[in-house]
Amino acid sequence: MRPAMQAMHTDIMNRNMSKKPLQSPTARGLAQSALDYSASVAYDRFLYSFDIRASIAHARMLGRQAIIPSADADAIVKGLEEIEHEIESGVFEWREDLEDVHLNIETRLREKIGDAGARLHTARSRNDQIATDMRMFVRIVCGQTVEGLVRLADAIVRLAESNPAVVMPGYTHLQRAQPVLFAHHMLAYVEMVWRDIDRFAACSERADSLPLGSGALAGVPYPIDRESVARELGFSEVSRNSLDAVSDRDFVVDFHAAAATAMMHLSRLAEEIVLWSSEEFGFIRLPDSFATGSSIMPQKRNPDMAELARARTGRTYGNLVAILTSLKALPLSYNRDLQEDKQTLFDSASVLTATLGVFAEMLPKIEVNRKRTEAAAGGTGYSLATDVADYLVGKGVPFRDAHQAVADLVRYAEAAGRPLSGLTLEEYRKFSPEFGDDILMLDVQASLNARDVVGGTAPKRVKAALIEARKRVDALK
Amino acid sequence: MRPAMQAMHTDIMNRNMSKKPLQSPTARGLAQSALDYSASVAYDRFLYSFDIRASIAHARMLGRQAIIPSADADAIVKGLEEIEHEIESGVFEWREDLEDVHLNIETRLREKIGDAGARLHTARSRNDQIATDMRMFVRIVCGQTVEGLVRLADAIVRLAESNPAVVMPGYTHLQRAQPVLFAHHMLAYVEMVWRDIDRFAACSERADSLPLGSGALAGVPYPIDRESVARELGFSEVSRNSLDAVSDRDFVVDFHAAAATAMMHLSRLAEEIVLWSSEEFGFIRLPDSFATGSSIMPQKRNPDMAELARARTGRTYGNLVAILTSLKALPLSYNRDLQEDKQTLFDSASVLTATLGVFAEMLPKIEVNRKRTEAAAGGTGYSLATDVADYLVGKGVPFRDAHQAVADLVRYAEAAGRPLSGLTLEEYRKFSPEFGDDILMLDVQASLNARDVVGGTAPKRVKAALIEARKRVDALK
Amino acid sequence: MRPAMQAMHTDIMNRNMSKKPLQSPTARGLAQSALDYSASVAYDRFLYSFDIRASIAHARMLGRQAIIPSADADAIVKGLEEIEHEIESGVFEWREDLEDVHLNIETRLREKIGDAGARLHTARSRNDQIATDMRMFVRIVCGQTVEGLVRLADAIVRLAESNPAVVMPGYTHLQRAQPVLFAHHMLAYVEMVWRDIDRFAACSERADSLPLGSGALAGVPYPIDRESVARELGFSEVSRNSLDAVSDRDFVVDFHAAAATAMMHLSRLAEEIVLWSSEEFGFIRLPDSFATGSSIMPQKRNPDMAELARARTGRTYGNLVAILTSLKALPLSYNRDLQEDKQTLFDSASVLTATLGVFAEMLPKIEVNRKRTEAAAGGTGYSLATDVADYLVGKGVPFRDAHQAVADLVRYAEAAGRPLSGLTLEEYRKFSPEFGDDILMLDVQASLNARDVVGGTAPKRVKAALIEARKRVDALK
Amino acid sequence: MRPAMQAMHTDIMNRNMSKKPLQSPTARGLAQSALDYSASVAYDRFLYSFDIRASIAHARMLGRQAIIPSADADAIVKGLEEIEHEIESGVFEWREDLEDVHLNIETRLREKIGDAGARLHTARSRNDQIATDMRMFVRIVCGQTVEGLVRLADAIVRLAESNPAVVMPGYTHLQRAQPVLFAHHMLAYVEMVWRDIDRFAACSERADSLPLGSGALAGVPYPIDRESVARELGFSEVSRNSLDAVSDRDFVVDFHAAAATAMMHLSRLAEEIVLWSSEEFGFIRLPDSFATGSSIMPQKRNPDMAELARARTGRTYGNLVAILTSLKALPLSYNRDLQEDKQTLFDSASVLTATLGVFAEMLPKIEVNRKRTEAAAGGTGYSLATDVADYLVGKGVPFRDAHQAVADLVRYAEAAGRPLSGLTLEEYRKFSPEFGDDILMLDVQASLNARDVVGGTAPKRVKAALIEARKRVDALK
Repeated sequence: MRPAMQAMHTDIMNRNMSKKPLQSPTARGLAQSALDYSASVAYDRFLYSFDIRASIAHARMLGRQAIIPSADADAIVKGLEEIEHEIESGVFEWREDLEDVHLNIETRLREKIGDAGARLHTARSRNDQIATDMRMFVRIVCGQTVEGLVRLADAIVRLAESNPAVVMPGYTHLQRAQPVLFAHHMLAYVEMVWRDIDRFAACSERADSLPLGSGALAGVPYPIDRESVARELGFSEVSRNSLDAVSDRDFVVDFHAAAATAMMHLSRLAEEIVLWSSEEFGFIRLPDSFATGSSIMPQKRNPDMAELARARTGRTYGNLVAILTSLKALPLSYNRDLQEDKQTLFDSASVLTATLGVFAEMLPKIEVNRKRTEAAAGGTGYSLATDVADYLVGKGVPFRDAHQAVADLVRYAEAAGRPLSGLTLEEYRKFSPEFGDDILMLDVQASLNARDVVGGTAPKRVKAALIEARKRVDALK
Repeated sequence: MRPAMQAMHTDIMNRNMSKKPLQSPTARGLAQSALDYSASVAYDRFLYSFDIRASIAHARMLGRQAIIPSADADAIVKGLEEIEHEIESGVFEWREDLEDVHLNIETRLREKIGDAGARLHTARSRNDQIATDMRMFVRIVCGQTVEGLVRLADAIVRLAESNPAVVMPGYTHLQRAQPVLFAHHMLAYVEMVWRDIDRFAACSERADSLPLGSGALAGVPYPIDRESVARELGFSEVSRNSLDAVSDRDFVVDFHAAAATAMMHLSRLAEEIVLWSSEEFGFIRLPDSFATGSSIMPQKRNPDMAELARARTGRTYGNLVAILTSLKALPLSYNRDLQEDKQTLFDSASVLTATLGVFAEMLPKIEVNRKRTEAAAGGTGYSLATDVADYLVGKGVPFRDAHQAVADLVRYAEAAGRPLSGLTLEEYRKFSPEFGDDILMLDVQASLNARDVVGGTAPKRVKAALIEARKRVDALK
Repeated sequence: MRPAMQAMHTDIMNRNMSKKPLQSPTARGLAQSALDYSASVAYDRFLYSFDIRASIAHARMLGRQAIIPSADADAIVKGLEEIEHEIESGVFEWREDLEDVHLNIETRLREKIGDAGARLHTARSRNDQIATDMRMFVRIVCGQTVEGLVRLADAIVRLAESNPAVVMPGYTHLQRAQPVLFAHHMLAYVEMVWRDIDRFAACSERADSLPLGSGALAGVPYPIDRESVARELGFSEVSRNSLDAVSDRDFVVDFHAAAATAMMHLSRLAEEIVLWSSEEFGFIRLPDSFATGSSIMPQKRNPDMAELARARTGRTYGNLVAILTSLKALPLSYNRDLQEDKQTLFDSASVLTATLGVFAEMLPKIEVNRKRTEAAAGGTGYSLATDVADYLVGKGVPFRDAHQAVADLVRYAEAAGRPLSGLTLEEYRKFSPEFGDDILMLDVQASLNARDVVGGTAPKRVKAALIEARKRVDALK
Repeated sequence: MRPAMQAMHTDIMNRNMSKKPLQSPTARGLAQSALDYSASVAYDRFLYSFDIRASIAHARMLGRQAIIPSADADAIVKGLEEIEHEIESGVFEWREDLEDVHLNIETRLREKIGDAGARLHTARSRNDQIATDMRMFVRIVCGQTVEGLVRLADAIVRLAESNPAVVMPGYTHLQRAQPVLFAHHMLAYVEMVWRDIDRFAACSERADSLPLGSGALAGVPYPIDRESVARELGFSEVSRNSLDAVSDRDFVVDFHAAAATAMMHLSRLAEEIVLWSSEEFGFIRLPDSFATGSSIMPQKRNPDMAELARARTGRTYGNLVAILTSLKALPLSYNRDLQEDKQTLFDSASVLTATLGVFAEMLPKIEVNRKRTEAAAGGTGYSLATDVADYLVGKGVPFRDAHQAVADLVRYAEAAGRPLSGLTLEEYRKFSPEFGDDILMLDVQASLNARDVVGGTAPKRVKAALIEARKRVDALK
């Protein structure tokens, strides 16, 4: 039996990666195990497009500032554009012995354009270079995540729009408490999405500062023009302290915190999908395309997507812990520890993106079983008890006394095995003389209508909220 | 031997808490162990001032809206003000059997003002009430934390201002890399503080939405005026969805994430304080008032404050994990699980506040041992190697070739056991014909001066950054 | 408004703690904020009984070895016994200025017995002393936790014993999958308890090594007899390396990992209690003494204990993260960071103990609604589909083919809106000629009986498993 | 610019994975996004060898028990052996549309041997199958980890053996406290390794129970012989409860907890390697093959391996949090959430294995700079202060009084700028009349020799400990 661990390791390391004797200047002489342990190209190569864009902007600036000959700058730009094409067409040969994405690209550049390529690394270091790549990545991913969140909001709103008048029980403690509109329930999740969007937007803003120009740690001894590089790369400012610029990974932590929170929200929705799909609740029917059956019960609809989303929430929590742990008690400035900012970031970004995609596609296809939700909302007949108490309060009975009277009333009805709606006015009056004829007209719809406050479940409020949400989604799409 | 666990438990439970047979309506009939397990008054009573303020605003609004008689509203307000005074003067009797801060206060109110007190809970529920209290608490704590962060920035800036020209080694991999100004190093931490302030400000803004009026989960059936309550309590908007309003604890997660990040920063500074206080570094001398000695070596200065701050970082990470775990997969709307949002929040807030306070007081009293830092910055004589390479680049040598030449030069000097500054021009020229006389003038000061870019360690840049930081601190104080 | 944070802080610090100008030798001269930040007596005093026992054993040994006069040793022992009595009767005055439990007790000892007291600290240091106290604490708490776990197992077994023949649906994906016995389901949790017990026993064993005698870090220069102290304190061995002995907190991590795992198990049971208590499932009725109602619906039974247990799981996860974070990258040997091992340990121990207690008391009082569980187990009539397939396999049909035939059969029945039990033999035969008369006798009971393998849900297997579990519980009680 | 996220995703999904229209019975009809989200073959295929071994044992048993024809059993075994060969020689075509490792292998089996292959899945389900695979994996990985730990212990012992008499400062609070032997310091880490070994051994034992035979959740309706399968697969017992058997992932949590603890230990050693490699400490010189230089300072030795190990500790903490979070509040029995047990497990196992390997190779090649460590151990001349106090105690002075006298003495010497060794007997006597001539002979060696207790740093004790450790390592190799 071939050891599984080794298989895993080999697989990860060998993913179209060549091994050459020639090595990078820093890695030269490393033991193979040390190179395997420290090389990052297996994952940081996913940053290639950011690395190339940043190098192009850097080279152009060096040319403009006459730090390198402008012909060299032009050759560098052209060479890098070709390399990007090589990578995207799959012909680029990634080499583990060259450690990381930077040296792989720079080495290839020198192969292609010779001496001019040797000037690219003027006035920068891998420390400010990787910080730049990572900030560009985080900003792009924040943008993509916001798009995914908007699609999710759209999907939730569509599901709500398809079921505008469906009533279901509102729960506290997973006990039926008061009837609410299904659309109202869905709009609660839309609120979470708005907050998530806000969080990723803030994360993107905090990453919006260009570290390039900080050199290894102290700034560079060249007359560089950092602002022009920032402009070309879409940063609105340059970092203010070189030591901080190469040591800071707050923007990575911010991303993880936002991702963990967003997945927490999705895990709550996932839990409800699991519950509502159960025979016991029977509130929804998942589309065939987003549920698995058993091999023997093809009619079964296992809520696998929801279960997986719920479980993967754990990964995003763990990744947040990982980066925070790695950064704990790290002295300034650059330490190799910072290399560990990538894999967990890529993982959380992937998990979140994929989950948003699946949910956005799945949700609008869910069928709500109105018969089941409305039967449940009517329920045992006591879900309107608070409305009865509020009726008494409306007649001037102090709140706590009204509650006591209704508590007695409910106990009476329950002992008699009857719903509140089955009681006579005389029976009501035994518990308070304030009850009038109109108490007999109290029903689920009246209960809903009464909650006519901002944020309440009264149908007209929910309708307005739905229109508002739709507007906001459409504005963001 | 008395069991320690029981001692702990008893102590926590008995903190001036009385036990009475009479119990709250919901807790009535609970087993003693169940009451002990679920009662929250031992910790949620710290929210009393928020609870009372919110109740006062609620009662006034109920009066204005004629939902309750205005005389009752007045009596409630007066009664609550008296109760606040009772609590603050220590005469209020907290009762565990009344479960939580809300029922303790409301029960006392009814004792004091009778029937009118029974009207206070009209048009609200404990679910929207506690969400309101918690948001008020988080906003206040964010404000206090920002103040603490400003004091910290002030302290760091003062330490930098006291040592404006001190040179020290800049480190990468904890290896001396290039000389930097001590003030530049300190300003890196100020950058972190600005980001922390931004994070707590954002957290406070996200908590700036009034949940009161959401009732138990669905809104309330009374003509309440939520906006006026929001204004009175300093909220700039009201929540838009009642189910979300009682289920949402994002603002708590945001606080924990910001606190964990801020403590991570402090742990990095703490690590450096520990390193610099060691005999090996000898860069700083802690003040007697913030270091412990050993009983036998009174001259010793153990960096206990830094060590404890470093360790307590773990608590804030753990508390972040705790709240995220508690919220994972929780269906809507209110679940008792949400009660668990408090103790970890109070803990992280306390840890952070205390750490900020101690550091703000300690830092300006630190003495920097300039002789040691400057000797280290000069070091083995090779810390200027990159400057030598940059010199060659300035003469037109491609960056990578310049580096190779200097690498050979350093190897040569090292083999000869001499610093670079000890080499002759002829020796330099062996490695590149581009070296001229001026290479002999390269020294630490020249190296610093050369890093004359935004964010660089050139003295004039650092001076400007220091002035900028001082301005910003003073504007915020 | 009085700031809540300050109130919290003051409260915690002032818990019958006096403030005196005179301070400990190490704390002398500390700023008040520094003392507040570093003093641990507010929580480490809960270790007093361990501290005193260890000091008594140490003093006796010093006397026996003639390191101190035996009269002094006797005086120390007597003095410490009196101090323990003072503490337990509440007259001992804890002083924050004396920092920790050790100095509080030693100072009092010198007040009581003078010079002899000054000899107690011979041949030890606070570093090996606190490591000893902590190990004693962890061992005791492990023991108490095992007792709590045994009581929990007892409670689960009793609940199973009270409902030996109740059938319920077994779930996968929260979908009804195959009928199982309720007792079988409960016994799954008993398996988890056995593993938890094993984990705490292992934790206790790993803590079973005496660090005392390691001194500050290097051992002590006295002819001490470590083995005799170990024997007196119930340790079966002495630590083998002094540096490790004062730096090691693995046994604390082990406790946290075991506690987090046990709470994870309880969170799973809690989740099921919440589900089963819902109107939708309706499988169980919680006792009044372990459920809260609403003020208005006294008949309601909110599963608060289960919800709180589920949420508090987060605290134990967080505490595990906290200790791991604090220990990350800590150089040898003792660092003040290690002081942070206590509060989170006490917290997880309390949470777990309390949860075990509440569940052990609550579970046996749960009433199972057999009508509901059995109706659900019969369910839609397709829960026996796998049994039908297994029937065909028994007739020689390959497993995958049998599954295909039954899948078609189920689809047919579902389209017709009929349960499998409503089909005729002719209908069965349309899908496979292997069906015989006996297929019509397949029912829930037959399905259960068929699972007659070790660990299966066949009633006779479950009965045997229940007897086995009862035996094991009784042997451990 | 090609979006990086998509590149990442595509890369992960496409790793020699074919896409076919034909899909698994359960996945049939799934949306592509749903299949991408739920298919696990990209990572669970690493379990192939366990899956095949378990299937072989299962098939043999089915044959022996006459549940399937023995010719079919033989065909299955032969087919599976061929498939294993196909996989290991790289010709096996993994298909994402077949979801997981099980269906990929079973589908291929049916292609190869037809109908007989359709009988393999008799009397089992994917739920008990994957639980079995995972337990086999964990047990193997525990074994490999223990081997890695033994190699680490060997490496540490070798480093200690090479430097048997080197003295260095022992630290508390990163302050020099008392001299210790370098070998003694190293042996502290060996103690940690023994505990780690114990933890992985316990983890392996807890995984030593065969779930196969539990079916989907309730056991299987066939006369299977579980014990014989257990024997063949090397399990010493079979699971006792089918619901628990398919739901339990405790053994995965155990592995993560043990891995996090082991990495915590390695992070402490890593931190010391980083410190000791700094110019300030200068205690060790890393081998060229395990250190990187800068491109310009080839003589530099950055401790990258130690830094990376320190940072990757975070990943193992995060992975522990991930699995605990995923399991929180999961109802019985199998839920799709359990699929998420793999990636984080594989990750932690890889990180730990690789780190152990690199450290085991690197440590014996470290050169200790004895001149530096011994100069530091002599240090400022006050590191023997506690020895001076112990001297007085030996003369009968009470411990606390002796400490006071020496504190005064140290203060005196420090004020005079002299080491203790530079004082005259008269000067000593000013502080206590008990000082005799022999106090002048106190030196580092005497201090070491005096710590002649079990676990102390006295050279003869360390020598014995080293021999003991060597024996233990050799016995385990």
